[in-house]
Parts: sequence; structure tokens; C-alpha cells
Amino acid sequence: MERKHIPLQKQRLEAFSDGVIAIVITLMILEIKIPEVTGNASAGEIWNSWFNAIPLLIAYILSFVILGVLWVNHHQFFQQVKHIDRKLLWYNLHLLFWMCIIPLPTAFLGLHFERPEATALYGFNMFMTASAFALMREYVHKNEHLLIDHLSKALRKKLRIKILATVALYFISIFTGYISIYISLGIFLLIIVIYFMPQNTVIEIKE
Amino acid sequence: MERKHIPLQKQRLEAFSDGVIAIVITLMILEIKIPEVTGNASAGEIWNSWFNAIPLLIAYILSFVILGVLWVNHHQFFQQVKHIDRKLLWYNLHLLFWMCIIPLPTAFLGLHFERPEATALYGFNMFMTASAFALMREYVHKNEHLLIDHLSKALRKKLRIKILATVALYFISIFTGYISIYISLGIFLLIIVIYFMPQNTVIEIKE
Amino acid sequence: MERKHIPLQKQRLEAFSDGVIAIVITLMILEIKIPEVTGNASAGEIWNSWFNAIPLLIAYILSFVILGVLWVNHHQFFQQVKHIDRKLLWYNLHLLFWMCIIPLPTAFLGLHFERPEATALYGFNMFMTASAFALMREYVHKNEHLLIDHLSKALRKKLRIKILATVALYFISIFTGYISIYISLGIFLLIIVIYFMPQNTVIEIKE
Amino acid sequence: MERKHIPLQKQRLEAFSDGVIAIVITLMILEIKIPEVTGNASAGEIWNSWFNAIPLLIAYILSFVILGVLWVNHHQFFQQVKHIDRKLLWYNLHLLFWMCIIPLPTAFLGLHFERPEATALYGFNMFMTASAFALMREYVHKNEHLLIDHLSKALRKKLRIKILATVALYFISIFTGYISIYISLGIFLLIIVIYFMPQNTVIEIKE
Repeated sequence: MERKHIPLQKQRLEAFSDGVIAIVITLMILEIKIPEVTGNASAGEIWNSWFNAIPLLIAYILSFVILGVLWVNHHQFFQQVKHIDRKLLWYNLHLLFWMCIIPLPTAFLGLHFERPEATALYGFNMFMTASAFALMREYVHKNEHLLIDHLSKALRKKLRIKILATVALYFISIFTGYISIYISLGIFLLIIVIYFMPQNTVIEIKE
Repeated sequence: MERKHIPLQKQRLEAFSDGVIAIVITLMILEIKIPEVTGNASAGEIWNSWFNAIPLLIAYILSFVILGVLWVNHHQFFQQVKHIDRKLLWYNLHLLFWMCIIPLPTAFLGLHFERPEATALYGFNMFMTASAFALMREYVHKNEHLLIDHLSKALRKKLRIKILATVALYFISIFTGYISIYISLGIFLLIIVIYFMPQNTVIEIKE
Repeated sequence: MERKHIPLQKQRLEAFSDGVIAIVITLMILEIKIPEVTGNASAGEIWNSWFNAIPLLIAYILSFVILGVLWVNHHQFFQQVKHIDRKLLWYNLHLLFWMCIIPLPTAFLGLHFERPEATALYGFNMFMTASAFALMREYVHKNEHLLIDHLSKALRKKLRIKILATVALYFISIFTGYISIYISLGIFLLIIVIYFMPQNTVIEIKE
Repeated sequence: MERKHIPLQKQRLEAFSDGVIAIVITLMILEIKIPEVTGNASAGEIWNSWFNAIPLLIAYILSFVILGVLWVNHHQFFQQVKHIDRKLLWYNLHLLFWMCIIPLPTAFLGLHFERPEATALYGFNMFMTASAFALMREYVHKNEHLLIDHLSKALRKKLRIKILATVALYFISIFTGYISIYISLGIFLLIIVIYFMPQNTVIEIKE
């Protein structure tokens, strides 16, 4: 009589995560109410009502890009994972939870762009999301049998520093809005730029 | 001339279920309206309006975790299933039906945390969900050709007791709210804790 | 220089259809607004407000089951399909279109259960959905290279009669509500019962 | 020590895109509010309220078909792609962004059918969507290792002309509404007809 875990499918975890991220990224648009104009509004009034929706659109674009970065990294992270276990399902659900919440501070940021409370809530949500990602990453890297074999130590260290730096930056962004909301917005943009930089896509394989 | 069932794909059942669960888990957030504050509200007024949304957030987190438990168990259950038939599609749709309903009592619980009617509705929905899961499990275990071969009788019995206990606990939770809503909430938490316990992930394989 | 169609993946058509059906089946629940009760409402008032939502819930359950029947049949239909082409993508999109519309007459039926206009709209939507399915089926059966090889003529004829009967019944249900809405509701139930009957799951394979 | 990109899965990109497109295509229906009629409304009043919803339905059908065309082409495009890289993920996310926005001008067009501002916004969104598709196509065709081997130069040139013509037509449609909105609507229909034409499904394979 052998005791064994029921093997879990990485593919189903990925499909479920893709589903949740796809829904979140699309749902946010629901928060943007189309401007209501009367039938005999002038062209100027119509364009004005759309211009007023621009902060909401900018907040939506910001969250869309951040969710895009998260999806790309989720994709790349699970390319490094060989096996999954039940705990990893929960680390992933924890990450998805914070991603599901994102539409709330996004809409609040769009409505109250000028308020430090809005960037604080937004930064907090992103800080928790990045932390959830870091926790999941730590768990997998502490359980090496879950990882594919050919990841170099140097790369693993580099990826770890990068994600911890992201967590730290988001933490700082919670408070910087009280000095100027543009510092917080600048931090959000900085993190996106870091993740767009091409060197991150290269992986060193040890042989 | 042979008469045979058209084989059905387990994979498509899983993908469809994942889609529904992903949508339910994400849709619930729509019920949480972001607090409306005027442009010149004080910081205190803003935070107050968010604090008022905390019961809704707690109800959302509770349902998120319960749906997470259900997804993990759905995942593990279908890892034990080898073949599916048309009846199993319907047992699964029945389960999905009760999961789709969850956002309704969740929002009601968030708005009326202190009312026994809210925990009764919530407990009833969870009781029906767990019953639907139990019914599906019974069907598969009565039709052994649907199961993978190497499940020990001991494990199958243990899993059965566990799910029937869950059904019983949720049934009790419908009524306990009339004594104190905290008993019902305690039962909801207890069930989550039971499903988090690590021994459940181990499977004994008979050889 | 050979001229050839780019092969299309049946799997991606199925995944997309599953996504759309999963979203429709879950979205409908959004139309059911949770009853608003004041903080000091009596238990009687709370239960009354939920009882008032019962027609909406019944309409939702009806559409959930019909969409379930459609998904099960979509699943079984594409198990009979070997190849897909660009036209079949559009026959399928046409079917999905009428399925996407279902939440509208469902909500209208839930709000105006007693009106023949509500059953007429509902019946019309179902008539168009069933017609779209029949059209897709006719297309595939006229292009035999799309079909798997071992479908007997007898079975194909039986399936054809069944779907044409469904189309006819839904057509009749558009008008019967003006005599009594219960005739229309009875037709909707009758069709569900027909599709639940077990003999439909058996396929005769010619050898 | 070799330096290599982590391979990315084309399948996951497709599944994620399917999810987003499925949600967008289904979400739009939420913008169509079912007509509110009182319990004792006459049949005439009920039908009138539905007739008033017809512009919204037409706008919805238009966007449904355009999104269908986009999905079919997305499907066919990735059938021509052999490998994906990180940049392609972002080109695809850029395309999905503009597709996610579509429900906004769709609803606006439905509410203000007669206004050139509505067709301008709609045309602009479609212009950006087609441009995003063209950009993604250009990127893949400049990086030939991402493409499957057997695409003839002639076909590639034909496909390029077709998509650039689509971009140009949508650009024109932004402005033609100020002469007559029916010119813009005519352009939208013309593009759909172009993509329905059967010759587009044939591919010349060089040997």
C-alpha cells in the first residue's frame, strides 16, 4: 500500500488563472459609464462629457497594463514550474484574489485622481498583489522538485531581487501620494518600465 | 451494427466548469459598489466610507475562499475520474447552478451581516452546493467504470464521510444563525479549515 | 504550388464556445437584483422580498437548464465533427449570438411572468437559437468530410427529426402564450424533458 | 552556460485571447437594459418599448459581427504562427485592449445613432483595433522564425494589403459621419463583407 498525492494538472491551474485574469481585465471597463448626453446636445457638450471620462480611461489603461504585466509574468513563472501541489493552488488563488480586487481601487482612482487616498488604496492593492506573487515564488523555489531542472542560480537570484524590489516600490507608493500623487503614479509607471525591459526575457540555462 | 455512447471529453467539462467558477468568483466583486464621495470630502469621510464597505468585503472574501475550496476539490475529484457520461455532465451542471447563485446570498450577507435571515440563506446555498457535490460523487462511485482504478476503499470511504459531514454542517448552519449568527459564521470557517488540513491531499493507492 | 485551406482547430472553437456559454449562464444572475430591505425590516418583510424574486429565479433556472441542454448538445455535436472550416466558425458564431441574447428575454419573463408578450419574446429567442443549431447541423451533414466516419444513417436521421421538432415546438410557443402562458411554459419544459431522455445518448455505429 | 529564452506557449496566448474576446462579446449585451414596463402596460406599450431598443440591438449586432470577424482572423493568424515571444504577447495584449474598449462606443452608437460623434468614436475604436492587428502582423512577418514555413510570398502580400486597406477604411470612417452617418455605417458593413468573401480562406503553399 503506497501513499501518494493525486497528481494535479498544471494546465488546469493555468486555464483557471487565465479565465480569472481575462474577466478582471474586461470587467473593469464596466466601471466606465458612457457619458449621458441628451438627444439635442451640441458636439461640444458630447466631447466635453467624453473628456471628463479621461481620468477613468487613464486609470483603466494603467490597470490593464499592470494586469498585462502580471499575466505575462504568471505565464513565464509557470513555464519554470514542472509540478504543482495543493499548496501551490492556494498560493495562486491568493494571488488571484488580489487581482480580482483591482477594479475597485481602479475605479476609485479614476473618479478621484487628485486624492492621495486614491493612490494609497491603489498602491496597497498592488503591494498585496506583488507580495502574493513573491510568496508564491518563494514557495516554489523552496520546493525545488516543483521547478524545472535547468534554472541557473544566478537567474533565480536576479528574479528574486526583481520581485522583492517591486514589492518594496509598491509599499513606498502607498505613502508617497501624500507628498504628491505624481510620485505614486511615477512609481507605478517605473515598475511597468522595469518589466518591459528586454533583458528580463533571457534565461541562463546551466548544463 | 454496434450501439455505443459517443465518448465525451473530460477536458471540455473541466474547461467549462473552470470558466463558470472563474466568472462567479470575479463577478461577486461587482456587487461591491465603490464608496461614493464628493470631490471635497475630507480624508476621514473617505476612509469611513471604505470602512462601511468592510462587511461586503468580508462576505466577498468568505465566498472567494469557499469557491476556492470548491474549485480545488472539483479539480481533485475529476483527477479521480477516468471517463464521463451524459449524466455526469448534468450532475456537474447541477453543482455549477448552485455555485452561480452564490453571489446573491453573498451580497445579502454583506449588506445584512447582523441578520439570521442572511446566514440562513447563505447556509442554504452552501448546503445545496455541498449536496450537489455529494450527489455527483455518489453517482461516480456507484458507476465504478468512471473511476480511475487505483483508489483504495479506505480512501473512498474517508472522502465520503468528509463530504457528508460537510453537507450536515451546512444544514445545521441554516438554523444556528437564529441563536447567534456567529455560530453560523463559525461553521463556515470550520468547514474551510477542515478542507485546508494537509492530510486530505494524500491518497492511498492499492496495488 | 498547391492551394489549401489553413487548417482550423476544433479545440479552439470549442474553448471559445465554452467561454461564451459559461459567461451567459453566469451573467444572467446579474439581472436578479438582491431584494433591498432596510436595517430594521422584520423577518416577514425580508422573506416577502425574496418570495417576490421567485419568478426571476424560476426564469433564471429555466434558462440555465436550457443553456445546459444546449451546451451538452453542442458538446455531443462537436464530438461528431472531425474537421472544421471557416463557414462552420460562422454557423457557430450565429448560434452563440442567439445564446448571448437569452439573458434579455429571461429577465423580461421573470419580471412579467403573466404576460403573453414575455413568453412570445422568450419563445422567439429559443426558436432562433434552435434554428441556428439546426442550420449548423444541416451544414455539417451536407459536407460529409467534416463528420466522423462511423455515424449510421439511421442515427443521423433520428437526430435531424429531433432538432427539427424542437424548432417547430419553439415556433409554436411564440403564439400559444396568447391562449395561455402555461401552454408556452409547458412547451419549454417538454423540450427539456425530451433532451433529458436517456435513449438520446446512444449512438449506432456502422461497421 | 547557454543563454536562452524561456519558451512561451502559443496555446496559452490563444486561450487567454479567447477568454477576453468571449467576455467582451457577451458583456456588451449588459449595456442593453431591458425595457421597463408597468404591470398593466398594454401590448402596444410593451412592443413600443422593445422597438425603442432596436438601435441598441443593431449596434450590438454590428459589434458582435465585427468581433466575430476579429476572432476568426485571430484564429487564422495564429494558425500561421509557429513560435511566440514576449514581444508578441504584448502586441496581442495591445490588440485585446482595443477590443475590450469596444462596448463603450457600441453603447454610445446605440443611444445616439443619428450623431456623427457616435460613428466617429466607433470608427476610431475600430481603426485602433485594426491598426493593433496590423502592427502585430508586421512584427511577426518581420521575424520570420515565428512563422510557419509554408506561407507563400504572394499570400503574405495579399494579406498585408487587405489589413492595411481595412485600417485605411476605418480611418476614413471616423470623418465620413460628418457628411452622412450612413457612409460610415456603409464602410463598417463593407469591411465585414470583405472578410466574409470566400477566397480569403484559401492559402497557397509553396513547395
